[in-house]
Amino acid sequence: MQRAAALVLRGCCPRTLGPWGRSQSSAAAEASAVLKVRPERSRRERILTLESMNPQVKAVEYAVRGPIVLKAGEIELELQRGIKKPFTEVIRANIGDAQAMGQQPITFLRQVMALCTYPNLLDSPSFPEDAKKRARRILQACGGNSLGSYSASQGVNCIREDVAAYITRRDGGVPADPDNIYLTTGASDGISTILKILVSGGGKSRTGVMIPIPQYPLYSAVISELDAIQVNYYLDEDNCWALNVNELRRAVQQAKEHCNPKVLCIINPGNPTGQVQSRKCIEDVIHFAWEEKLFLLADEVYQDNVYSPDCKFHSFKKVLYEMGPEYSSNVELASFHSTSKGYMGECGYRGGYMEVINLHPEIKGQLVKLLSVRLCPPVSGQAAMDIVVNPPVPGEESFEQFSREKESVLGNLAKKAKLTEDMFNQVPGIHCNPLMGAMYAFPRIFIPAKAMEAAQAHKMAPDMFYCMKLLEETGICVVPGSGFGQREGTYHFRMTILPPVEKLKTVLQKVKDFHIKFLEKYA
Amino acid sequence: MQRAAALVLRGCCPRTLGPWGRSQSSAAAEASAVLKVRPERSRRERILTLESMNPQVKAVEYAVRGPIVLKAGEIELELQRGIKKPFTEVIRANIGDAQAMGQQPITFLRQVMALCTYPNLLDSPSFPEDAKKRARRILQACGGNSLGSYSASQGVNCIREDVAAYITRRDGGVPADPDNIYLTTGASDGISTILKILVSGGGKSRTGVMIPIPQYPLYSAVISELDAIQVNYYLDEDNCWALNVNELRRAVQQAKEHCNPKVLCIINPGNPTGQVQSRKCIEDVIHFAWEEKLFLLADEVYQDNVYSPDCKFHSFKKVLYEMGPEYSSNVELASFHSTSKGYMGECGYRGGYMEVINLHPEIKGQLVKLLSVRLCPPVSGQAAMDIVVNPPVPGEESFEQFSREKESVLGNLAKKAKLTEDMFNQVPGIHCNPLMGAMYAFPRIFIPAKAMEAAQAHKMAPDMFYCMKLLEETGICVVPGSGFGQREGTYHFRMTILPPVEKLKTVLQKVKDFHIKFLEKYA
Repeated sequence: MQRAAALVLRGCCPRTLGPWGRSQSSAAAEASAVLKVRPERSRRERILTLESMNPQVKAVEYAVRGPIVLKAGEIELELQRGIKKPFTEVIRANIGDAQAMGQQPITFLRQVMALCTYPNLLDSPSFPEDAKKRARRILQACGGNSLGSYSASQGVNCIREDVAAYITRRDGGVPADPDNIYLTTGASDGISTILKILVSGGGKSRTGVMIPIPQYPLYSAVISELDAIQVNYYLDEDNCWALNVNELRRAVQQAKEHCNPKVLCIINPGNPTGQVQSRKCIEDVIHFAWEEKLFLLADEVYQDNVYSPDCKFHSFKKVLYEMGPEYSSNVELASFHSTSKGYMGECGYRGGYMEVINLHPEIKGQLVKLLSVRLCPPVSGQAAMDIVVNPPVPGEESFEQFSREKESVLGNLAKKAKLTEDMFNQVPGIHCNPLMGAMYAFPRIFIPAKAMEAAQAHKMAPDMFYCMKLLEETGICVVPGSGFGQREGTYHFRMTILPPVEKLKTVLQKVKDFHIKFLEKYA
Repeated sequence: MQRAAALVLRGCCPRTLGPWGRSQSSAAAEASAVLKVRPERSRRERILTLESMNPQVKAVEYAVRGPIVLKAGEIELELQRGIKKPFTEVIRANIGDAQAMGQQPITFLRQVMALCTYPNLLDSPSFPEDAKKRARRILQACGGNSLGSYSASQGVNCIREDVAAYITRRDGGVPADPDNIYLTTGASDGISTILKILVSGGGKSRTGVMIPIPQYPLYSAVISELDAIQVNYYLDEDNCWALNVNELRRAVQQAKEHCNPKVLCIINPGNPTGQVQSRKCIEDVIHFAWEEKLFLLADEVYQDNVYSPDCKFHSFKKVLYEMGPEYSSNVELASFHSTSKGYMGECGYRGGYMEVINLHPEIKGQLVKLLSVRLCPPVSGQAAMDIVVNPPVPGEESFEQFSREKESVLGNLAKKAKLTEDMFNQVPGIHCNPLMGAMYAFPRIFIPAKAMEAAQAHKMAPDMFYCMKLLEETGICVVPGSGFGQREGTYHFRMTILPPVEKLKTVLQKVKDFHIKFLEKYA
């Protein structure tokens, strides 16, 4: 039918309409006609289906934006449409996005970014000179003096130098080499890239990647994508989520039976668990990695988020170096940082870096080659990272305001961490380990047997059932522990501590009330 | 030796130094001592080597930033160090980065971005109201009204709506659904993600991906990474790089013998070839994809770069729709656009989008899930994309300046395209097809037999040998045709048309002079 009409049309405007050409309205009319007559026969079987797609992608899960968050989105739409609920807003306590919950960006950072974005502002009296100085430095290092040019695939040179200087200062003088610094599109991009290069082999030689349980589910997702072998090591909940080297040993021995364990991932401070590893623990881990010939990944994006006065952040790089040359010349390490956390909360800019230690020069060449296919990380995110590592210093005009804002954010987070830990520990049936760092609570919840049965009837994991009920009854969206991993028979959820203090108090009260009711209902 | 010292130290500061702890200076001293005594024994064999790395990553090549560009970088460093060369600067004509070559960003776009970055500027009289209006719209749609929050993984909602409205206008009313729009980290990210989902199967069922030869080497790189099968179809150089459906048929028939051809990639306007496909050709391709059940990828990032008055950009989406429901309801299509090209040249922001047509709803769910692992594309890049699709309109304050700047950039590019084509065609031994669009020349070079021998002696492909000599003698960096693919026995190079007019004329003259000398030398 179409071909006949087409042949008639072929005579006119051959350059604008081919044999199948027709106007929009006649096509639309025909479409309606055809669909009315034989709706099923118009739609062929698709090429891309759940069955034909990449099975490795199908296996990927990412709970932080998973089913419960999709449900939260549906509920928000219902609220917008005026459907009555026991609450007036959904509180998204599922994701570590501080600015989404009202945290203000650091003024100085945004000033420098604005100057880089629209350099006319360099002539404006409304911007401080120290911000202009940094903007000029960044722009001079960019192609065409513009954030709009691709940078080198490893990142803008002077920003890499600034990152190296930052690391050196942070680590009390332990030197960092700019050549070992790679700017990335958030830390997730760097972690994913390094894992991609590492994974090889087949059958029992397939690369095993050791990850903490509970983990940040980027790791399990990338391991799925790459068809690598996930090797779980359990953090010790009874010991404030400490990392026990005996458990590492147990995990690697078992893993060797079915894969080639090659990589050890550490998150410090921990996500979701919030523990800050002691220096001794870090040394033990490094020694273990050296012994077992494991490539170390140190995810340190929460390095600025340490609240407990008894804890201190020690970078893996620094500890490695200070353990002497047998370690510092041999252990292969990649450490990651990001603009998304800390006191900056610049998630949307997708800024990050990785520092690699003891990588074979040929591998570094391979790394740059792989990165070059995506050209470069967003230059605006690189600029944001530059300000993070090169902030105002005493004597500079912006220093006071910068310090005030930074201390305010971090002080606030520390206060909210304590508040959350204390509040949860007052609730019968909830136990929350100390929130030493990061920005989450990961309390353990004790789910009564009747609730377990109800969950099973709903074909849900018990903690997912709990979190769904919490969401439906209070509008509070948290992520069930099963999304991060937990010891068999234990249940948790991860909640951020990011809402403003007063709102957080309300949230915590609502969770407490919900939990007590839940216990009563399923007693 | 270390353990003994450690036991002594163990007594003091147990929390700050573990058994292997030592101060930086003693560690450094020991490191020197050890390295002096037994340098080789300190360095163990590495875990991550060329042999142990991911073989799929090892196979990846990306010529646009490949060996010749690394060489250009070395030469630049030599110039900086004062080493004398036959030229004073390296001209990087290897990469489609307009702003790096001096093209100015569009004022309005940077104004809106600055307002979004530093909203204090919304109170500044120095910014036009139409820019402020757009900035407010974008910020209101962002979490916490900030570019620093993660967006939804599919992208900021109102930006997706703006993209859909743009597509609808562009395509003369053919409707686009915001739900089919996904914002991406440059077009490369979208292309890579779609290919990742598509690739499956093993042995003779492994997914085959049809790509044009010559191609933009992102495609071959991603195919390598995914261990998919690359299926080449040759563009017709004798016919201005036209796409011939008979050649598609030839390619797919041959491919079926050893893989499962599932995907057909088109680049229109073409890169590196610069051809703009006729509407009839696009219809033929769509019909072929429908017949052979191929998923269509339409890379349309140069849709604003059409210079030839005889050519017009027709989007695959529009043509598909106008071919009637048998096609428009069945053919699965993904189309890509970017902020990097056009008149904007905003490469560094990594802005882009893809529009998907006829994807199974379950697949769209899988797509969002996969994207969610990386959280979201850079929100600043999304904002840039928003201004591209929602620019000033007649009646708005910024319209005149915007139009002037846009026309100036595009007029300039058109002039340089013609200049380049004409200049190359005056050189004996160089033939350049018409530059209908995009931003590259891909001239054919005829390499004399003696030069072929010299190339072989240097263990280089003849066109790499040519380009290396060009670089060493003139400082001009172009990419050999072998980086993009070409018919056996033919040689080309890709050069951008992006340097400013006067510089471009100089570059072209130098290439001409070099080529004539080259022909004489190897006569």
